[in-house]
Formats: sequence, structure tokens, C-alpha cells
Amino acid sequence: MEPFRDALLNHDNNLDVEIWPDIKSKDRVNFAVAWNQPKEQFSSYPNLQVVSSLGAGADHLLKDPSIPKEVKLTRLVAPKLSEQMCDYVVMSALNMIRQFASYTRQQIRADWKPHSQYQKENLMVGIMGLGELGTNVAKRLTANGFKVSGWAKSKKSIPSVITYPEDQLDPFLADTNILVCLLPLTAETEGILNLDLFKKLANPGFLINVARGEHLVEEDLIYALDMNLIKRSTLDVFETEPLPESHPFWSREKISITPHIASVTHPDEIAGLILDNYKRMLSKQELINQVDRQRGY
Amino acid sequence: MEPFRDALLNHDNNLDVEIWPDIKSKDRVNFAVAWNQPKEQFSSYPNLQVVSSLGAGADHLLKDPSIPKEVKLTRLVAPKLSEQMCDYVVMSALNMIRQFASYTRQQIRADWKPHSQYQKENLMVGIMGLGELGTNVAKRLTANGFKVSGWAKSKKSIPSVITYPEDQLDPFLADTNILVCLLPLTAETEGILNLDLFKKLANPGFLINVARGEHLVEEDLIYALDMNLIKRSTLDVFETEPLPESHPFWSREKISITPHIASVTHPDEIAGLILDNYKRMLSKQELINQVDRQRGY
Repeated sequence: MEPFRDALLNHDNNLDVEIWPDIKSKDRVNFAVAWNQPKEQFSSYPNLQVVSSLGAGADHLLKDPSIPKEVKLTRLVAPKLSEQMCDYVVMSALNMIRQFASYTRQQIRADWKPHSQYQKENLMVGIMGLGELGTNVAKRLTANGFKVSGWAKSKKSIPSVITYPEDQLDPFLADTNILVCLLPLTAETEGILNLDLFKKLANPGFLINVARGEHLVEEDLIYALDMNLIKRSTLDVFETEPLPESHPFWSREKISITPHIASVTHPDEIAGLILDNYKRMLSKQELINQVDRQRGY
Repeated sequence: MEPFRDALLNHDNNLDVEIWPDIKSKDRVNFAVAWNQPKEQFSSYPNLQVVSSLGAGADHLLKDPSIPKEVKLTRLVAPKLSEQMCDYVVMSALNMIRQFASYTRQQIRADWKPHSQYQKENLMVGIMGLGELGTNVAKRLTANGFKVSGWAKSKKSIPSVITYPEDQLDPFLADTNILVCLLPLTAETEGILNLDLFKKLANPGFLINVARGEHLVEEDLIYALDMNLIKRSTLDVFETEPLPESHPFWSREKISITPHIASVTHPDEIAGLILDNYKRMLSKQELINQVDRQRGY
């Protein structure tokens, strides 16, 4: 947390910032920033008003019963986070259709063997989740000549993107080749990437998961790869991170693993957003990206 | 050549198409299509009017002394070829700044280790060659948030792209981090990617060569990587293809090798373009993408 404290003080050196567990007096804390915090920490802060996530996800806050219900939760959607996510998804989709990971593996054994490539015009990229990240990813994919559709809980309208409402998951899947998961993690979406869903995808099927490891039933992906329901998968997030050395994903050539780097928080950019919400809290203004506890994000 | 003959006949089944070396009567041939042809084949076709390359490059035709000077040369710039090239360069640039090849290599040893990433706003992509391919690549890179400059023999104007004229190579290089070679291969450009040039690049330096193997002085790249003048390089073309098994490039982790797949000709699309020029020849109209022998492309 040191880089974030330093970045906050850089923005405003009158701030009083302390890093857990070195909190001098808990009753002075009114605004907290948390990411994968140890459970059950929050009940002993009597004047806590807001807890901000450090990223776009707030599931770690929603799952923490020690945060009193009257405390407001916020999450951060930083432009650079979104830009990085767009880059990552475009890179992954292109790597899949051009088989770049296969060429890297072939290089190790000095093997010059061209592969046929998938044509973008024959593939549909389907994005699950059209929040700020999903919408930006959809736009960037269309700018790269991909055909794009999206599935979202609330109605969305994005130029050149076919959008499906919540009750149209099956038709969305039936028309999707490259499935990109950018959903928030909620009770409804946990385990949504499972064998049933993979069976409903168009052929050839590909999976990119950049949301949360818990969206994916990991053993179902292994089975779907063996069944050829999924040709290739790129995963940035996992149930357990770091991914344990003994995990079967490591040795699967059809899976590309990156160590949760799709979008990496920049302390300086984040500090500005945190400070904005902190000042809004002090002046009792509406917070930016406040989490709806009912909806789950 | 069979898929190209079939595609041509699909477009017009009255065509008379023969595949070398099974040419029944050489004096009936007025239009030829060639790619990496064996040398010294063309002198014995008395009525030859046009030779078309199968791709965007025509260096294999210009270097063939058996093609009489009065025979016109054409090259093909197919929209799909250009689209594939854009995909390849965007993919390669993103893979470089996000270190995707390193993650693929780490996966083989079950190594979860995030790397810092280069920020697009701190890097300039410099494109050598702003013909149809180079211009399209420049536009696509800007659509992906890259800062882009270009260097070209003739004056070009592309929105959001800084262009340098022929005599401004050094200032172009001094401001370029990711150098993309899309030059035609001519006497002037052969060996242009050499140690002298690498020393003039901005730091960090990266190299993507998608033009011709002969543009690169291969031993100079090895040296430049060892000197850290170049951090990473992605190469699709080589002096000798397939790249010999004993070539030192294979074992270099800072080099990503693909087997000349950046843009792959589609027989069906190509057939339409060839046929168009064939009909133009018959009706004595100006040819599309005729090669200027003086200029060399």
C-alpha cells in the first residue's frame, strides 16, 4: 500500500493516511481503501463512512460481513485501467486467431510451420458484461475489424455492437465464437463459465476471462478443451492466485496464462480518483461509482 | 498454384490458365502470375505483356533479368492482405509492451511472475514505408491509442501521424521506440535495418520486420539485442526461409519468430484482382498497382 499512500500525499500532503495494521486510532478513520483485505477487519471503526475498492471489482468488499451496511462502497474505473483492458483483450483475440502462442512454442524447438488462421469476418466476439470496461472493449474490438456482440443485465446501445438483454443469454452464446468475460462477480455470475455454457457457444469457440477466477468452473474448461468445445482460452484470473504450481492449467498448450496483469492499477491515477470521492464524502456529495449492494456491483 | 488457378476459373471459366512447368505453347502466354519463381524462366515467352506478383512485393520480379524490359510488372494490394498486416502489427506491438511471449515461456515452467509493462503514452511507433500497407497500419495503430510516426520517400499526410520526408531519417529514428519496417525491397533499402540505424533509435527500442528478410542485417540485430539497443524484436521474414534450424534467432528469447504469416494471400480475393488487371491489359487500359521499375516498387 505504500505507493498508494505516497501518491495520495503527492496529491494533497495535508491528508492523514495510515496503512493497516498500523492504525493509531481507529475512531479517526472515516474513509478506507481496501483490496483483498483480511476478513473481519472493519467492525471496529465506529466512524467509517466509505470503503473504496482499489479496482473495478468490489466483490471483496461485498463479501466482507464486517463492513456495516450503512457504510458506502465505491469502486474505481480509471481510464488507464480501461485502456489496458482494451489492449489486453485485443491482443488476446488477435493472438488466438493468429496462433501466436503456438509460434512461441514452436520457436523453442526451431519449428517453422505456418498454421491456417481464423478469419475475423467468420467470427463473432461476444462480451459478457457491458459496464464501462465492457463497453470500451467492445468499441476497441470493432475499431480492429471484429464483429462484436454483448450481453448485459441492463439495456445498452453501442454503435456496431449487437446487444442482448439478460433473458437472451442462449441466443447470444449461439452466435458467439470468442467469449470475453467482463462480468462483475456476484452470486448470479459465480461459476457462469461452465460446461453447460460452453456447449451453447458457436463453433469454433474461444474463451477470454479477464474478470474473476470464480466466474470459471476450472475443471469444466479442461473438459471443454478436450471435447473441442473450446479451441483456445486466455486466462488472466484464477480461483487461486498465484496459480498453484501443480495446477493442470499450466501444462495445457491450448490455455494461455497471464498472471493477473490485464489491467494494473497506477497509484498516481488511482490517488486522484480516491481523493475525489473522499472530498465528495466530506462535502456530502454523491460518490462516483458507488456500489449498489443489492445489484452486487 | 492450383488454388489460384481454381479461383481464377471460378471467376471466369472461359479463361485459359496453365501452371508452370506444364505450359503447352509458350507463345500463347500474354499474362503471367509469379511468386518466388525460378530464375531465368521468362525470356522464352515472346508475347508476354504483363507479369503480376502474387503479393504486395515485386522485388522477385525486378531481380529477374529474364523478364524483358517492355513487359509490365504489377503487384497486388488486396484489402484482406492489408487487414491481416494491420492485425499482425497491432498484435506484435501489444505483445511487446505487455510481454506476452515471456508469459508463454513462463507458463512452460509454471512460473507466475508479473512483469512491469511499457506505457503506450511513453512510446512512439515509427513506420518505415507509408504505402497502402504502411498507411493502413499507421491508422490502425492510432485507433489502438499508439502514438505513431512515419518515414516515407514521397510526402504523406495521415491524420494524427507525424510524417518525416526521405532526408529526415535520423530525426525520425531519434523519436522512434517501436520501429516497424514496411518498406519495399530495393537496392536502397536492402540492409537498412543495421547496427548504425539501431544506434539512432530512442530508448527503449523495439523492432518489427514484416517487409523482407533482406532489409535486416541479421548479425547486427543479435548484437543490438546484446547491447540492449533493441529490447525485443518480432520478425516474420528472414534472409533464408524457412529459417534454417541452426539459425541463432531461434534460441533468442528476445526475438519472436513467425513463419512468414503476417499476411497470407487468399486465392479467391487475389483472383479478382488478377483478373481485373488481365482485362485491363486486353482493353489497353492503365493497370492497377503497376510497378515503377526505376523506383523499384
